[in-house]
Amino acid sequence: MTHLIAIGGSDAGISAALRARELDPSVDVTVVVADRYPNFSICGIPYFFSGEVTPWQSLAHRTAADLEATGMSLRLDTWAEDIDVAGRKLIVRAPDGSSEALAYDELVVGTGALPSHAGIAGLDELGPDDGVHVIHSMGDTFALDRYLDERDPQTAIIIGAGYVGLEMAEAFTVRGIRVTQLQRGSEVLSTLDPELGSLIHDELDGNGVEVVVNSAVTRVEKTETGLTVHGVHGDGPFSRTADLVLAVVGVRPNTELLERAGATLGAGRAVVVDEGMRTGLPHVYSAGDGTVTHHRLLGLTYLPLGTTAHKQGRVAGENALGGDAKFAGSVGTQVVKVFNLVAARAGLRDHAAAAAGYAPLTTAARADDHKRYYPVAHPIDFRITGDTRDGRLLGAQLVGRLGTEVSKRVDTYATALYAGLTIEQVSELDLAYTPPLGSPWDAVQAATQEWSLAARKAAVSA
Amino acid sequence: MTHLIAIGGSDAGISAALRARELDPSVDVTVVVADRYPNFSICGIPYFFSGEVTPWQSLAHRTAADLEATGMSLRLDTWAEDIDVAGRKLIVRAPDGSSEALAYDELVVGTGALPSHAGIAGLDELGPDDGVHVIHSMGDTFALDRYLDERDPQTAIIIGAGYVGLEMAEAFTVRGIRVTQLQRGSEVLSTLDPELGSLIHDELDGNGVEVVVNSAVTRVEKTETGLTVHGVHGDGPFSRTADLVLAVVGVRPNTELLERAGATLGAGRAVVVDEGMRTGLPHVYSAGDGTVTHHRLLGLTYLPLGTTAHKQGRVAGENALGGDAKFAGSVGTQVVKVFNLVAARAGLRDHAAAAAGYAPLTTAARADDHKRYYPVAHPIDFRITGDTRDGRLLGAQLVGRLGTEVSKRVDTYATALYAGLTIEQVSELDLAYTPPLGSPWDAVQAATQEWSLAARKAAVSA
Repeated sequence: MTHLIAIGGSDAGISAALRARELDPSVDVTVVVADRYPNFSICGIPYFFSGEVTPWQSLAHRTAADLEATGMSLRLDTWAEDIDVAGRKLIVRAPDGSSEALAYDELVVGTGALPSHAGIAGLDELGPDDGVHVIHSMGDTFALDRYLDERDPQTAIIIGAGYVGLEMAEAFTVRGIRVTQLQRGSEVLSTLDPELGSLIHDELDGNGVEVVVNSAVTRVEKTETGLTVHGVHGDGPFSRTADLVLAVVGVRPNTELLERAGATLGAGRAVVVDEGMRTGLPHVYSAGDGTVTHHRLLGLTYLPLGTTAHKQGRVAGENALGGDAKFAGSVGTQVVKVFNLVAARAGLRDHAAAAAGYAPLTTAARADDHKRYYPVAHPIDFRITGDTRDGRLLGAQLVGRLGTEVSKRVDTYATALYAGLTIEQVSELDLAYTPPLGSPWDAVQAATQEWSLAARKAAVSA
Repeated sequence: MTHLIAIGGSDAGISAALRARELDPSVDVTVVVADRYPNFSICGIPYFFSGEVTPWQSLAHRTAADLEATGMSLRLDTWAEDIDVAGRKLIVRAPDGSSEALAYDELVVGTGALPSHAGIAGLDELGPDDGVHVIHSMGDTFALDRYLDERDPQTAIIIGAGYVGLEMAEAFTVRGIRVTQLQRGSEVLSTLDPELGSLIHDELDGNGVEVVVNSAVTRVEKTETGLTVHGVHGDGPFSRTADLVLAVVGVRPNTELLERAGATLGAGRAVVVDEGMRTGLPHVYSAGDGTVTHHRLLGLTYLPLGTTAHKQGRVAGENALGGDAKFAGSVGTQVVKVFNLVAARAGLRDHAAAAAGYAPLTTAARADDHKRYYPVAHPIDFRITGDTRDGRLLGAQLVGRLGTEVSKRVDTYATALYAGLTIEQVSELDLAYTPPLGSPWDAVQAATQEWSLAARKAAVSA
């Protein structure tokens, strides 16, 4: 009987374990989990802090009992210390501190990522008890929750304005905490073009979040009056003081275990795998945020996302049983809700497309989510990137109000990117229309038609 | 200078005219419109009756002035009587009753469809003044509006439970009119499998609409007490009386003009065209509801839809100027809102797929629109049809509450159908996820994964 060990209780490890049990109920599956919280939705944590999700237990995709009911064994509070590749053994530290060697036939490593400190001094020394928080695990979550309960902070500084930073700005604001959001770049949500990021900025402004862009944080310091964040803003120094600091400045792949075992690092210093999630070490697979990402338009890159971790884990679980599944590749689809706006993207933005050797043109468009005569239509703002040489769709970005189906409209582009469609082909798609929910040419197509007209004009004038 | 005449003020004719003007502002474009209401959204009429759209003028996609501002000429209240194909002349009857011959270089015919009477006796003789209505033009709309104003009907019988019938059942109910909806088949919305149609049926029930399925209407009669509809229900006769009857039992292509000019009829007795919308008659194109539909999974069929009419018209307008555009083909995408539910489909259902030579398997699934921990998740019901031989996606049907993004979720399937993806490939798509709006595997993919598991089981047991 095959014994599969999956390391990691988050998306990749659990997906691998579930897939293996689904395909072959005779396989013996053990999941080694560093904490007591397997299969928790880390993406859901901001909604716990906003009060929309309660109790915290409901953040579990599945309970431990659900997981065990599929036939897998869980080893909780168990730390994966070393892989003996030749001996096919995983050395773990059990909850009681003792070491143990677990024999495996196949090993899937899903150790994920760690919060980055982005070179900010003080983040290594200061911790939750000081009011300096990260938010990457359930342990971080409990620590922040306790701090909020016990200290009742009135003000918070959030370092970073990416997905989690924005979601936490909303959560703190909903709780009545005044938020200052510091962003190193020139606009929030730097994964979108600034023309669209500025819409999110306006939404933050309108909800009372103080946004400071172009602010490079260098140091966090504990003072008499609270926590002081120092940095450079424009030409000069700046500092801000608050009761709480949350640092959400990105992640780095957690590769220590596999590096020591001899795996190769690649893009973003993540573990290199083939499309079957094979590390090259015999019988060892890697999946999730510690692993490189095959991107359909970029080749190998590093783009840690939960959706990708689920898919990579599923592939690893299948191949660990002798399958030949391939991760089909990411197209970089992402979406975030910020107060009453939804922002989404798929594919490449202009600069990334150019850097990858495409000949991009990016155009803006605005189109209503449904027929204007039907109450209540709202505009969606689009930016479409295509290749001027062959008309291929390279990317799409869109921002609209909650309720304008931005999140599933981006999926049309994501599907088109997967299939390698041209922008003209997107305009040809037979998309759904009823006046309360769309237009005869969907907003998605109004945007691609704008691109085609602009490309035609550019070609004529060239 | 080329003179293009488009016949028809609805989607196909106007789209052809707009496309021609967009591509070549030097082209002379005349649109011949049988009534005074060019470019009205016929799909929006139910929302005028529900009171959600007011005034009726706002149903225009563009006003006559908007259209003329593009440089096209409108000939309103002008009836296209005959085409002199050899002489390239269109004979029209002007508003004053006189005949006139309009010379053209290229002609696009978009005469649309006519309401079907489905062999129901009385529908030819009784009209709006008697309380018997159809709803296919702005003229029909004004007649029904006047009847509602003047007679204040308390009860209505709607014959038919397709898209427009259901939308009108909602509109009448919202106005306080008690509705009886008669459906020939065994379930409402027969474009979906009855397992999903029954959800719409429940929604109608819950909103006070009396639904009578398996009721074949044979005759409508004016009586002392109102209008009586006679028919067969199950084994015996039935009759119902109400103050108003609305017949929405489908349409038939309006082909008289092109038939007399020598065009060929095909699927659904609609005018045959090639993918460039050429009728075979020199310089004569046909587009919209009078025309056959190229379907990417079925070949030539008849499937009159506004979205298709827009696309066909655009192709005809481009080709009339010497272009070589091709209508890429429908995949039969449709969506309807019925009270608080949204029902959508794309592609083929099981029986149609089997009839077309595919080897279909259809499976059901239910998945939440977003993570259950985030308020307020609702289930979406899916039926997925795929080919068991090659795994190709053949069709998808889904029903969910308003707000579950069903309308744009079906677009993912529509895009996949366009691209010829397999069901496994749909499961691989990189779709958008954030807990308030989706799941790491989107509901769309939970449904395709169910299909794959069922197909695997069927293959093992075969």
